[in-house]
Amino acid sequence: MKKARIAVLLAGCGVYDGSEIHEAVFTMLAIQESGNSYQCFAPDKPQYHVINHFTGQEESQPRNVLHEAARIARGDIKALETLNVADFDALIIPGGFGAAKNLNQWAIAGPDGMIDGDVKAVILAFSAAGKVLGALCMGPTVLAKAFEDTDISPLLTVGTTSEPSPYDIAAISAGMTSLGSKVVMKTIAEIAVDKKHKIVTAPCYMMEASILQVRENARQLVDAVISLC
Amino acid sequence: MKKARIAVLLAGCGVYDGSEIHEAVFTMLAIQESGNSYQCFAPDKPQYHVINHFTGQEESQPRNVLHEAARIARGDIKALETLNVADFDALIIPGGFGAAKNLNQWAIAGPDGMIDGDVKAVILAFSAAGKVLGALCMGPTVLAKAFEDTDISPLLTVGTTSEPSPYDIAAISAGMTSLGSKVVMKTIAEIAVDKKHKIVTAPCYMMEASILQVRENARQLVDAVISLC
Repeated sequence: MKKARIAVLLAGCGVYDGSEIHEAVFTMLAIQESGNSYQCFAPDKPQYHVINHFTGQEESQPRNVLHEAARIARGDIKALETLNVADFDALIIPGGFGAAKNLNQWAIAGPDGMIDGDVKAVILAFSAAGKVLGALCMGPTVLAKAFEDTDISPLLTVGTTSEPSPYDIAAISAGMTSLGSKVVMKTIAEIAVDKKHKIVTAPCYMMEASILQVRENARQLVDAVISLC
Repeated sequence: MKKARIAVLLAGCGVYDGSEIHEAVFTMLAIQESGNSYQCFAPDKPQYHVINHFTGQEESQPRNVLHEAARIARGDIKALETLNVADFDALIIPGGFGAAKNLNQWAIAGPDGMIDGDVKAVILAFSAAGKVLGALCMGPTVLAKAFEDTDISPLLTVGTTSEPSPYDIAAISAGMTSLGSKVVMKTIAEIAVDKKHKIVTAPCYMMEASILQVRENARQLVDAVISLC
């Protein structure tokens, strides 16, 4: 079988202002475990803001999304603007607030928040080319924003209201529905697969999850993405 | 069997100025996979410096070791000065240049570099209490510095000269030997186990390794640490 080439779209480094590190690393691990390959990308632009992950307070020092995401990728990362969709079979977006602050602005303005223009263009290009999309945690809100005002109603999950979550799953799900997405409830042990539109989403740390559960949930997502490639 | 409680000592967030993210995350994952638990710690002090992981250049903005390490731990981290050795069965130090810039200063001055006083005290306290020590990648240089001028000659590895490495394994090994350590060559598929002193070390990214190899090497180390607890 031909190896799948996966673009992993990062949004900084750290759950509160960038990509959730565990979700990003487990995505990369699962891709290589399955015998496939990845290349990391991130937008080359300032982060929305910087959060001190020890105190939870906002800091004044500016940081760059690409430069911080490079920490997760050990320097092996490219600017999103250089991504050639023809070179890849799928695009996966790990979660963390960076997805909802630097890729779209859901964390600031909910479904009314702007999506980064380059991010939207890349997502729609993958979709138009019949390629596969994956998103973890808050990543599905980026897909919901990208497909707003299109003919596509993607099937997405950001978790479930039936199990403990640190976040308002009902409100986020309602916001995505308002943008035209079909939202389904999924537990940390499940993923949502939209076979028609080739989109896979996983709750990960949207739920009260252990590192082990997130590892398994990310692996489920990666395996499903690859099976659709 | 009683569950082991492992203290994981971080040194920032990112291979070039902090803890190597993959090694740290895979250590945490393997501890939980084995049914045991961890608590992350880091020194509350300024980083030696900050490296832009995209350009490789040094940046002028200061960062704090504990605050950056908190990114890997999702905020669930404590200052090293609060670590009570009695609460833990083992201490594991992931690698990355942060271990050799913020915990000791091997990256700046080789075996002559200073070791952080609190880090040294904690390592020697674990050893004196008959508890287990583990270190990945450049982490073993921290152990070598801690045991300098003691009666203990720990058996340690930082990799092998017989397979490709981005670093000068021979020079680092010689430096550790000069401090009184017994250094053994180990490949990315191996670990060094010092049963007498209850110390386990693993090459990880000291060798030219894939994320998958580092995941397996970190798991080997964690499993060996737990078997010694």
